[in-house]
Amino acid sequence: ADIEAGRAKSMQCAVCHGAQGMATAPDAPNLAGQNEMYLVKALKDFKSKAREHEVMNLMAAGLSDDDMADLAAYYQSVEIQLKTAP
Amino acid sequence: ADIEAGRAKSMQCAVCHGAQGMATAPDAPNLAGQNEMYLVKALKDFKSKAREHEVMNLMAAGLSDDDMADLAAYYQSVEIQLKTAP
Repeated sequence: ADIEAGRAKSMQCAVCHGAQGMATAPDAPNLAGQNEMYLVKALKDFKSKAREHEVMNLMAAGLSDDDMADLAAYYQSVEIQLKTAP
Repeated sequence: ADIEAGRAKSMQCAVCHGAQGMATAPDAPNLAGQNEMYLVKALKDFKSKAREHEVMNLMAAGLSDDDMADLAAYYQSVEIQLKTAP
């Protein structure tokens, strides 16, 4: 997957998921540092409507498998860490 | 919601979602710092099976609304930050 391509494609996601995936909309999940496998599955389920969400079904409808792989790789590449020591 | 109660209840989640929600299983999403509203919706959808996932449908079946609120509040309270400056 192509992280740079994913970054470019993520502009359309930033409205709700924020810059680098730190969500701005309160009901949108953070995507920063999220697991690539999980993100690909979520996007596929939104595209197939196995998982229903008004906005995400629309967003995912236009995504190719490559788009999904690139987006997932990009968000996983955004490094996050815990603020407080575990 | 009771963050401390959520922390205690999250022991059952840690197997896949890791301590403080930094996921250990590659297909499990990180929950650390995730949005409370999103987590409550996800848990309710897993309980009602509006959202299908073998493990999560089982885990959510036993959760009360209070459990879900406490768990969501706990995971949102785990502070995360971006490693690289935006």
